[in-house]
Amino acid sequence: MTSLVGEKVRMRIWIGEGSRHDDRPLYEVLVELFRQEGIAGATVLRGIAGYGAQSIYRSRKATRLSGDLPVIVEAVDSQEKLDRVMPRIEEMMSGGMITLEKATVIRYAHK
Amino acid sequence: MTSLVGEKVRMRIWIGEGSRHDDRPLYEVLVELFRQEGIAGATVLRGIAGYGAQSIYRSRKATRLSGDLPVIVEAVDSQEKLDRVMPRIEEMMSGGMITLEKATVIRYAHK
Amino acid sequence: MTSLVGEKVRMRIWIGEGSRHDDRPLYEVLVELFRQEGIAGATVLRGIAGYGAQSIYRSRKATRLSGDLPVIVEAVDSQEKLDRVMPRIEEMMSGGMITLEKATVIRYAHK
Repeated sequence: MTSLVGEKVRMRIWIGEGSRHDDRPLYEVLVELFRQEGIAGATVLRGIAGYGAQSIYRSRKATRLSGDLPVIVEAVDSQEKLDRVMPRIEEMMSGGMITLEKATVIRYAHK
Repeated sequence: MTSLVGEKVRMRIWIGEGSRHDDRPLYEVLVELFRQEGIAGATVLRGIAGYGAQSIYRSRKATRLSGDLPVIVEAVDSQEKLDRVMPRIEEMMSGGMITLEKATVIRYAHK
Repeated sequence: MTSLVGEKVRMRIWIGEGSRHDDRPLYEVLVELFRQEGIAGATVLRGIAGYGAQSIYRSRKATRLSGDLPVIVEAVDSQEKLDRVMPRIEEMMSGGMITLEKATVIRYAHK
């Protein structure tokens, strides 16, 4: 696993907290997919406000009932491994944005 | 809107949650500005601790009353569009940091 | 301090919210270290779900009692200054991931 160290890619997926797939939160399904595919790590961050591909403004106040705050799912691994999982991600998403950025992993260690 | 796909820029603005402009939270004003200017997407993340340009340490414990946790406003679009909105952002900010990073948008889709 | 403007580096450290050092939350110790070493800024973001170097899935639901959600500590400064602080960070961490990314600082201003 320490071979993860080096030039890698960070994928970021912007969706709504309320987006669902197979009756489950989409962000949970994506994290599970990343883990099953052996992607090195994934983290889900929730925004307190924002808008995205659908251009609908969301804020904590406005979404207390609907629960659809912006959510960012981040994953880090090689371009090849992220490319392999892309088609399945695309299938699951309706709206939303995906970006890729270069990231140098300098440490990846188990306890 | 799908023309957003390609090499773009991610702007990140670090301010305090308590920073205000015209009697409103500055992060809300910034998100509104980005939307009005047609910037493709914006998300506000709130930290649970941190310090910034002012070098004042903040944590959830210490700010339960003051509410001034660090906040990051992220926006993604072309360099040109972000450049155009920069002067207005600068006007609104007193302290804080702004960074730009390259990001490749590989999907930007409406529901 | 305005000399921070220019091509810099963003370090991101992925740990668990429950990771501790000297009986204190590790993310707090890291933020304090960054400040003592004069690093320009640091922010701690907490994820609502994720997994990392240890490959253990965490979500808000599952960790309500254990409190070990993923936490990202971000710091921005020059490569040289971040390099200098690296050995002490490595000493404090058991598991976890560290990445470096290029970031252009275009504003860094005190109130």
